[in-house]
Amino acid sequence: MAPTIDLNCDMGEGFGPWKMGDDAGMLDIVTSANVACGFHAGDPLIMTETARLAREKGVRIGAHPGFNDLWGFGRRVIRGDGPQDIERMIAYQVGALQGCAALAGHRVGHVKAHGALYNVAAVEPEVAGAIARAVKAVDPALVLVVPPFSAMERAGRDAGLRVAREAFADRSYEEDGTLTPRSQPGAVIHDPDEAAARVVRMVLDGAVASRTGRPVPIAAETVCVHGDTPSAVAMARKVRAALEAAGVTVAPLAPA
Amino acid sequence: MAPTIDLNCDMGEGFGPWKMGDDAGMLDIVTSANVACGFHAGDPLIMTETARLAREKGVRIGAHPGFNDLWGFGRRVIRGDGPQDIERMIAYQVGALQGCAALAGHRVGHVKAHGALYNVAAVEPEVAGAIARAVKAVDPALVLVVPPFSAMERAGRDAGLRVAREAFADRSYEEDGTLTPRSQPGAVIHDPDEAAARVVRMVLDGAVASRTGRPVPIAAETVCVHGDTPSAVAMARKVRAALEAAGVTVAPLAPA
Amino acid sequence: MAPTIDLNCDMGEGFGPWKMGDDAGMLDIVTSANVACGFHAGDPLIMTETARLAREKGVRIGAHPGFNDLWGFGRRVIRGDGPQDIERMIAYQVGALQGCAALAGHRVGHVKAHGALYNVAAVEPEVAGAIARAVKAVDPALVLVVPPFSAMERAGRDAGLRVAREAFADRSYEEDGTLTPRSQPGAVIHDPDEAAARVVRMVLDGAVASRTGRPVPIAAETVCVHGDTPSAVAMARKVRAALEAAGVTVAPLAPA
Amino acid sequence: MAPTIDLNCDMGEGFGPWKMGDDAGMLDIVTSANVACGFHAGDPLIMTETARLAREKGVRIGAHPGFNDLWGFGRRVIRGDGPQDIERMIAYQVGALQGCAALAGHRVGHVKAHGALYNVAAVEPEVAGAIARAVKAVDPALVLVVPPFSAMERAGRDAGLRVAREAFADRSYEEDGTLTPRSQPGAVIHDPDEAAARVVRMVLDGAVASRTGRPVPIAAETVCVHGDTPSAVAMARKVRAALEAAGVTVAPLAPA
Repeated sequence: MAPTIDLNCDMGEGFGPWKMGDDAGMLDIVTSANVACGFHAGDPLIMTETARLAREKGVRIGAHPGFNDLWGFGRRVIRGDGPQDIERMIAYQVGALQGCAALAGHRVGHVKAHGALYNVAAVEPEVAGAIARAVKAVDPALVLVVPPFSAMERAGRDAGLRVAREAFADRSYEEDGTLTPRSQPGAVIHDPDEAAARVVRMVLDGAVASRTGRPVPIAAETVCVHGDTPSAVAMARKVRAALEAAGVTVAPLAPA
Repeated sequence: MAPTIDLNCDMGEGFGPWKMGDDAGMLDIVTSANVACGFHAGDPLIMTETARLAREKGVRIGAHPGFNDLWGFGRRVIRGDGPQDIERMIAYQVGALQGCAALAGHRVGHVKAHGALYNVAAVEPEVAGAIARAVKAVDPALVLVVPPFSAMERAGRDAGLRVAREAFADRSYEEDGTLTPRSQPGAVIHDPDEAAARVVRMVLDGAVASRTGRPVPIAAETVCVHGDTPSAVAMARKVRAALEAAGVTVAPLAPA
Repeated sequence: MAPTIDLNCDMGEGFGPWKMGDDAGMLDIVTSANVACGFHAGDPLIMTETARLAREKGVRIGAHPGFNDLWGFGRRVIRGDGPQDIERMIAYQVGALQGCAALAGHRVGHVKAHGALYNVAAVEPEVAGAIARAVKAVDPALVLVVPPFSAMERAGRDAGLRVAREAFADRSYEEDGTLTPRSQPGAVIHDPDEAAARVVRMVLDGAVASRTGRPVPIAAETVCVHGDTPSAVAMARKVRAALEAAGVTVAPLAPA
Repeated sequence: MAPTIDLNCDMGEGFGPWKMGDDAGMLDIVTSANVACGFHAGDPLIMTETARLAREKGVRIGAHPGFNDLWGFGRRVIRGDGPQDIERMIAYQVGALQGCAALAGHRVGHVKAHGALYNVAAVEPEVAGAIARAVKAVDPALVLVVPPFSAMERAGRDAGLRVAREAFADRSYEEDGTLTPRSQPGAVIHDPDEAAARVVRMVLDGAVASRTGRPVPIAAETVCVHGDTPSAVAMARKVRAALEAAGVTVAPLAPA
């Protein structure tokens, strides 16, 4: 049986008059779209239009909730009075996308936290638990996309959610399986061919070369590609082509 | 069989640190709570907490969507590029409340537009149609609360939604069944006993005295009471007591 | 003495992570920059950076206040309770830019309303008066940029402000001197050479051909060019080159 | 010569339809009003109205800038990419209040950071320096209100600003002169008489009893009283009365 991988991309990250990324182009490449839900980016018009486009192109959609911080694009950690804030923000955003998706004739199938929230939930069990609880309450069939071996993965499993481990096409990894911090040289991979080769190896070998050259096990079910620049779209296209050339089936995540 | 009426109240209309109204007090009086959805008021914490309180007190909840205008509290008409804006804003807000309600173990049963959106939808078929389409797409079992004989009532019926006509306990009516504009003297009824007597008559007679004294037919299934001031809560309490004293059953709207 | 004209451009109209237009490119072309003030676009970082860039390139700056409507980019009319709202929003925004400009070592010299606010103030004396009062209160030396012969021009003069009439390089005019509505064919001029020729004629003849071909007197002191698309920047460059080739001095507005 | 103290209060902390505190009541008690600038609370209408009321009652006003976080009321630390964010947010907010004050015929005389920003700037020299730079750029005559012996005091002095040390009427102090954290019992003083007696002693003795009973030197020039609850207003009134009974002159800060 052919190896299979899902390709996901963050989308709908404009706001009002402002655009970000080539969503239509990316929807020809990926199998899952993570749609911003209005807190770090996105608005009801963009969300509904993105869901409609995804449906027309046969792409699954998921909610991409973040901190309530348009100005900072959800990249800044904002600590409220505890994990209840997070739980409720997630439920709100996932529900909002479900509403827009219904209007577009589509259906929300997964959830992937955005930016600072993703990073915090990777390492803080309280935050991860809040996300998992909210997702389960809204729809227990939702797939939770998680960093491998993270607090979010554990929280998702503990909540009885179907989780899907995510790898990044354009990021370097440390020996312990975490992402190389962006402050380090080489943290981001700019060469499309290198990125494509790495993703193929991730899928076929279940491993990726760390920054220091040692293989790191990475059993990803979904690989994130970016679409916010023309070169990002080109890289995503190469990744998909390389996967198909290697006999990998690019297909969406199986539902819970 | 005893006559029956639903009492509804707008709730959850604080934001962040700011409070509005005595929601806990009103939840002891009304049978339906219209919960603000974050656009004119409300936030994920307030929405979830309001839904939880309503569940505990056995009160049904509905979405109370408005224009995206915290500063103006949804009281200002904001015209976008057409009814599609409205349709999508409604789907977003209703979905968001569904998400929060799921977290609170409750369920959204109706939708009632807020402020300027309610007023515009009463008279503009395009706006009314956009609201009805959005509600139907998100959940066709939702009850749409409407001004009697309005464009919104027609749009709801045309969409196949269950509609519920609303009257106001503290507002005067014109001979044609519309609300007396707030700019007119006597538009708002301040005397709790007068309000209570009027509501009893609405339910028992299916009519209310217009500003000029002529009876106006008003076949309301739900009556809106306010809770934003202490005197408003006192009036709502009187309205409920008068209804019960007159043998009226105060009970939530039957679902679709 | 050589004829003189100011070229102005709206700038700093991104928000947070989102960009709009080629501000650096336009600052090599224009003599006045209208800087968004955070209500329809812009934020403290973008405003300060735009002021700094303008100072470095010797370009004057002005405030470009709009309705408080990021989502709608200030293109939607939002009516509050009267002109006092407008007056206060203008004072807030102009002051905010003065603060950012001080940080950048620059100084606010003019005010030009944005989008829907510009259009409303052109025809409604109450709104125009509110703008003029706010500008005068904040700094009576500010130049108010106005549509020729508009309510805003009258309000500015009545308030004792120095006003500067504005024409548009890429817009068609009606016989009465108003802009051809965008809904009409030919309302927007897309050919850079045509735009450039029209601007030269505006300056040298004090008139422009209306849509129907008749000359319309238009005694503009400043001409608005756009920078939000690459073709817009190219057009602006042509306009400036044509003016200089025709012996026109492109120079900022004289202060009050 | 009679000892002198300024009494200050945070004000204008409503937003749109929402109110907070009894500003009119407090303006009869205090000599300086710290006016929220639209980022954590406040809007152009409230700011202008607060400035107007203060002018009528002879109360000085200052800017009370905070993080851009209405939802969290500026109580949450939001870290951007560095101190430049802070610098620009401060310049924006102080300028915005200057604009509104001009409309109200008043003048901004001091700056006091709000909430989380105040707390961070007390201990982080980079943040404190950013605030001081912004204040100085906007108006070098502004008085910077600071926690005694803090990073903000040092930054203000280093920038050449006139600084004014602040004490709190209703807060307990540790032996090192810092505020007792709110998580500790006794951190907040609820008894108006105790608060009043403490403030009198602060002014007359230049010291206050720490939580452990030892006198802590506290050379405050201004004392913060709160007005957000009826009991807070009553306490403020007692503080002022006790000061006057003790022969202390309650008077605004001398300008730079």
